[in-house]
Amino acid sequence: MARKLRMGMVGGGTGSFIGDVHRKAAAIDGMIELVCGAFSSSAEKSIASGKALFLPEERCYGTFEDMILKEKQLPESERMDFVSIVTPNHMHFPPAKMALENGFHVVCDKPMTLTLDEAIELEKIVAKSGKLFALTHNYTGHPLVKQAKAMVAKGDLGTIRKIQVQYLQGWLSTSLEKTGQKQASWRVDPKISGIGGALGDIGTHAENLVEYITGLKIDELAADLGRFGEGRVLDDDGNILIRMENGAKGTMSFSQIALGEENNLAIKVYGTKGSMEWHQENPNQLITHWLDAPVKIYTPNGNNLYDEALSVSRIPAGHPEGYLEAFATIYKNFATHLMAVLDGKKIDKPDYPTAKDGVRGMQFIYASVESDKNNAAWTKFKK
Amino acid sequence: MARKLRMGMVGGGTGSFIGDVHRKAAAIDGMIELVCGAFSSSAEKSIASGKALFLPEERCYGTFEDMILKEKQLPESERMDFVSIVTPNHMHFPPAKMALENGFHVVCDKPMTLTLDEAIELEKIVAKSGKLFALTHNYTGHPLVKQAKAMVAKGDLGTIRKIQVQYLQGWLSTSLEKTGQKQASWRVDPKISGIGGALGDIGTHAENLVEYITGLKIDELAADLGRFGEGRVLDDDGNILIRMENGAKGTMSFSQIALGEENNLAIKVYGTKGSMEWHQENPNQLITHWLDAPVKIYTPNGNNLYDEALSVSRIPAGHPEGYLEAFATIYKNFATHLMAVLDGKKIDKPDYPTAKDGVRGMQFIYASVESDKNNAAWTKFKK
Amino acid sequence: MARKLRMGMVGGGTGSFIGDVHRKAAAIDGMIELVCGAFSSSAEKSIASGKALFLPEERCYGTFEDMILKEKQLPESERMDFVSIVTPNHMHFPPAKMALENGFHVVCDKPMTLTLDEAIELEKIVAKSGKLFALTHNYTGHPLVKQAKAMVAKGDLGTIRKIQVQYLQGWLSTSLEKTGQKQASWRVDPKISGIGGALGDIGTHAENLVEYITGLKIDELAADLGRFGEGRVLDDDGNILIRMENGAKGTMSFSQIALGEENNLAIKVYGTKGSMEWHQENPNQLITHWLDAPVKIYTPNGNNLYDEALSVSRIPAGHPEGYLEAFATIYKNFATHLMAVLDGKKIDKPDYPTAKDGVRGMQFIYASVESDKNNAAWTKFKK
Amino acid sequence: MARKLRMGMVGGGTGSFIGDVHRKAAAIDGMIELVCGAFSSSAEKSIASGKALFLPEERCYGTFEDMILKEKQLPESERMDFVSIVTPNHMHFPPAKMALENGFHVVCDKPMTLTLDEAIELEKIVAKSGKLFALTHNYTGHPLVKQAKAMVAKGDLGTIRKIQVQYLQGWLSTSLEKTGQKQASWRVDPKISGIGGALGDIGTHAENLVEYITGLKIDELAADLGRFGEGRVLDDDGNILIRMENGAKGTMSFSQIALGEENNLAIKVYGTKGSMEWHQENPNQLITHWLDAPVKIYTPNGNNLYDEALSVSRIPAGHPEGYLEAFATIYKNFATHLMAVLDGKKIDKPDYPTAKDGVRGMQFIYASVESDKNNAAWTKFKK
Repeated sequence: MARKLRMGMVGGGTGSFIGDVHRKAAAIDGMIELVCGAFSSSAEKSIASGKALFLPEERCYGTFEDMILKEKQLPESERMDFVSIVTPNHMHFPPAKMALENGFHVVCDKPMTLTLDEAIELEKIVAKSGKLFALTHNYTGHPLVKQAKAMVAKGDLGTIRKIQVQYLQGWLSTSLEKTGQKQASWRVDPKISGIGGALGDIGTHAENLVEYITGLKIDELAADLGRFGEGRVLDDDGNILIRMENGAKGTMSFSQIALGEENNLAIKVYGTKGSMEWHQENPNQLITHWLDAPVKIYTPNGNNLYDEALSVSRIPAGHPEGYLEAFATIYKNFATHLMAVLDGKKIDKPDYPTAKDGVRGMQFIYASVESDKNNAAWTKFKK
Repeated sequence: MARKLRMGMVGGGTGSFIGDVHRKAAAIDGMIELVCGAFSSSAEKSIASGKALFLPEERCYGTFEDMILKEKQLPESERMDFVSIVTPNHMHFPPAKMALENGFHVVCDKPMTLTLDEAIELEKIVAKSGKLFALTHNYTGHPLVKQAKAMVAKGDLGTIRKIQVQYLQGWLSTSLEKTGQKQASWRVDPKISGIGGALGDIGTHAENLVEYITGLKIDELAADLGRFGEGRVLDDDGNILIRMENGAKGTMSFSQIALGEENNLAIKVYGTKGSMEWHQENPNQLITHWLDAPVKIYTPNGNNLYDEALSVSRIPAGHPEGYLEAFATIYKNFATHLMAVLDGKKIDKPDYPTAKDGVRGMQFIYASVESDKNNAAWTKFKK
Repeated sequence: MARKLRMGMVGGGTGSFIGDVHRKAAAIDGMIELVCGAFSSSAEKSIASGKALFLPEERCYGTFEDMILKEKQLPESERMDFVSIVTPNHMHFPPAKMALENGFHVVCDKPMTLTLDEAIELEKIVAKSGKLFALTHNYTGHPLVKQAKAMVAKGDLGTIRKIQVQYLQGWLSTSLEKTGQKQASWRVDPKISGIGGALGDIGTHAENLVEYITGLKIDELAADLGRFGEGRVLDDDGNILIRMENGAKGTMSFSQIALGEENNLAIKVYGTKGSMEWHQENPNQLITHWLDAPVKIYTPNGNNLYDEALSVSRIPAGHPEGYLEAFATIYKNFATHLMAVLDGKKIDKPDYPTAKDGVRGMQFIYASVESDKNNAAWTKFKK
Repeated sequence: MARKLRMGMVGGGTGSFIGDVHRKAAAIDGMIELVCGAFSSSAEKSIASGKALFLPEERCYGTFEDMILKEKQLPESERMDFVSIVTPNHMHFPPAKMALENGFHVVCDKPMTLTLDEAIELEKIVAKSGKLFALTHNYTGHPLVKQAKAMVAKGDLGTIRKIQVQYLQGWLSTSLEKTGQKQASWRVDPKISGIGGALGDIGTHAENLVEYITGLKIDELAADLGRFGEGRVLDDDGNILIRMENGAKGTMSFSQIALGEENNLAIKVYGTKGSMEWHQENPNQLITHWLDAPVKIYTPNGNNLYDEALSVSRIPAGHPEGYLEAFATIYKNFATHLMAVLDGKKIDKPDYPTAKDGVRGMQFIYASVESDKNNAAWTKFKK
């Protein structure tokens, strides 16, 4: 490929959190350039946002529909290659569907859609379109998460018996949504977020991480959701018992009212031969335990890593990579795949989350809400 | 009081784990001396054990009955003041009952009894006897556990909303009991351990710690117990959803098959104003989080501690106290109370676990087993 | 500014470490685009490297002289704005001098030059040119290093009394240079590295960090350098006593033979009111101690930070930023300054290391080597 | 041995710090009983202190001379076996000398004496007496310090090249001695402390730990001592370059004005095959690094420990032992040796610090003070 990939963005206007993250993540590895965007539903704001990003005014669109249609009419040498969707949940499905159906590849933030039905439909649309679709479960981009997955897959831990996963935040401890704070407001609104609150926002990351690392599906769950913030209709906290398809058992806990927690995603996996733990806030350590050896701590680009982890590190051991780099790995792997496709080449096992993971996440939300309604009765995922 | 208290021991022969811990804990503060024991059900072994402890042969008894009866006949200036019971679970109730009924005070290891019925009866016997009874929930002896309890009690954390507690060990990951290892053998045997495996052995510590620190009762629980070791009839792992009397929710996880975990008891408590976490393996830090302040870490004898914590530390800040010192604090507080009683004095709020805590622990075991039988249905404690 | 800044690069061909770091760092914030480069002294390799970066062949130059002259002839709307120099030490001065004298701004890796004389001359050239010059002492870009500096400056710690700084690596524990490894080979070669080995490569970072955070100059030092690797003529280890201009005392230790250390740069600063420590490998914690308060830990975008730190964080608390982001902050602050200059605006206190820091670093190297020659005699910096 | 050893104490009256530590440490393992003491130079206070320890009045002496003479006249079946000396430095030599010359074994706190001459003389007196003499360099009692020593001795780390040791406290940050605080007052007084301040009080522990773990002698040192507290004539801070007999180099830093530090003794040792670090405040981890393996962390009673470490742990892995237990190990090993001697048995390599270590510590103090007077000139130990 003799050029960078061209990205158009839906959402992510000035002041947004995740839009800025996507842009930085897409930029780090030098494979992608931002060429256009529908950054806001106000054309004016979209232009202002785009200009601040050094884009020409004519490629700052007022709606995603406008962007998709106008870009389609540009010569192939100019038009965007793919769309990055960074809007709140209710605005994932419409632009994703339209982009795919108009020949554009898609990167989409999670959870994939507003409803499970949408997710199931989107998976079909992706398949039919033949276009690439990446879902930004960004935590799977960390080198040591890759190492963890590889260690389980190669049998290093033996049979998995026990899992603990948590994703704890405290930023909704107070009624932040009542102050007009934008990030808070939409997350507590079911019309924008869907039927899951913290469940969809961060619980899905926990679910995804468990299944990604262990290679096992959650078979059933018993969910006790909390709505601690005054007047909240969506969950802001949850405790879940999980049973995996192989008989392993575990707990999942997530919260946005765990005061003082910043972004404490962590997982422990116990097998018959070894065990491991990984903490997102200190992502450059994979702590492992063994039947007959002392604790061993793996570090990115450190000793004895598997290729799956080594290939993801950008810098030498001891130079910490963080959130943006892991996020960038999703973009990098998507871009690598897309470049290959555009060059007419095949690629072995592209390594980024797809629509399948998106459906799984929505099933998780729905199963949890159903279980919670039934006083934490055991509930299986449905399609 | 012009002399040390005199302790007799039931159990704890050469090679025992917890008996040795009790002896060291009782010795540290110089208030108690070991004067006699029924260290083993074999008179010969009991004598050998006692001699290794520098006891005269005539005070090494072959049975606890013998010890209690013979000591009772000694002049008051010689006979033991209290009995310390460090046998496996099934041998807690008989010597405790007999000691109390013969005028001796009692310190007893946990869980208090083999069955809930025994626990309820023992609580009555204690009350009737007028004697002191301490249960060694040793982890409540740590200075920073006292600090945590005091902070919650004084309202520093606001209303408690979320709790995570875990007690994870890995030493039964393999079928250790099949190798003849004594500690393992009795713990997997319901005739000796009762209806709870890991549940009784370590789950009760977790339950006790939650209620001790938060001052809240667990209202109901949903327990999913595991029996991972081949052929085990008792649980060796458990995941439990808990709901507290005030509406707080949480998870409890305990295990003896969490490979690689040594003695990982840890608790997190989240309130509306602050939150805290404490880890037994690194007991000299209490990590706290606040709405409007950076993370604050309290240390024993460090800055800004409450008296409840300061009064428990033995050595200056930075000189780590550990498991034995916390254990010793149970003995010290019991001894302080007993000396006051023997001196005919009153003491304000003696601070050590009692038969009431013991009953609570047995209720926890029974509720958990019942819930598990009903596929983790919500279950309340019964008396 | 209506466009991104245009960067040309000297060095950093395929396979280089620090060139890739500079490119990623320059890309993250979307203010800079790479437009040309003299990536290698082989024209062929330079073109191959440039193509892999999606550059057009005509802007991949075989020498930095060629690049500077040809770019100068391009229309202002196309030509590069500044040069980024990422070559080994001996190739810093020539391209920096030529770029500045031909009207280009410069970003340069550290240590600034091969010799102290060059450094002194370069500082003059910068001054005479009126162009901007940034030196990538990247560790000063961390939010919590900014916080540390601000806390000292505002007097939070009182008078500084004691300092410990270390920069420990282990990658030259073995004779890596004898295997032909490129990074190792030039670092042990005085013709390329200058008179300092580890001293120049990482010691200068330690020196810079001490003076940056404390706002105090090192007054004199006593250096005991080691040359542990077989046949090495340059130091690969050093222990230094330091005395600061205000009477504070301290130690500095750096090494590339500290086996097992990855990139362990760390600093502790003790004052009369408080103290602090920061560790590069876990950069998202600033641990502080106080006379009358518990330990407080600050986190990026966390509670109670000064604006100096808040303004540097890119993502919410708990989402770790790392080495690349800190590096990017040097580029971002340089770019912000340059854009202002190009827009004819003034900027208050541009915040990035300059030629002055570069001279200071070279003085440090020379003083240390002189002290070491005199058996660690106290030695002052010379100009 | 059919009985506990009988200990008499010099110093350690009510309210003392280190006396209480010695008593607890001596009690833990049940091999020693306190039978008498000269707890204070006031007979009244001595009696009050002794009574609080449940001793009979007749064995609470007003002077150590009185104690030694009176105890000597008691029947062998009653008299103390050894004297434990826990007074400030200037009162170590007189009671030690008198005890040894009157047939009593001795345990003595560090530094061994007030002056180097006294130390040299005491070493001779010990030798002449044929009695046992233990010096409480208590930190060598930690299981993982034993492990560290064993790993170096067995060559696991290869040739030692680099050492970092520090012992940092902050309790003398303010002019505590001016408030009348007893612990502070004598430590800043050369008539009581000797020529070293922090140097003698904690620097000697650092020196002892380096030589204990590495098995190497410090060959020469360059010391820059600080006297930061207003009006202090003794050092309260020090930074020292060290060179070991084998060519290894390192730094030592100690302080009692390192505000916020509690009792931060830590050591790092780097060899050609591996490296290790140990921290007294978190003593139950030995962190090791290796050329070709991930970081390995050893824990007391954990996997893969050498017998030297295993034999010292009292409780299972994960049950933290602390300061008192390490201190107790000195007493335990001394008691084991003494019991053997009293039983007429021989013991292989008794494992506790002796008068030889005490002399070494005093040499360290003197060399450091001399070096400091000569502006940190390299100085060798003298005898």
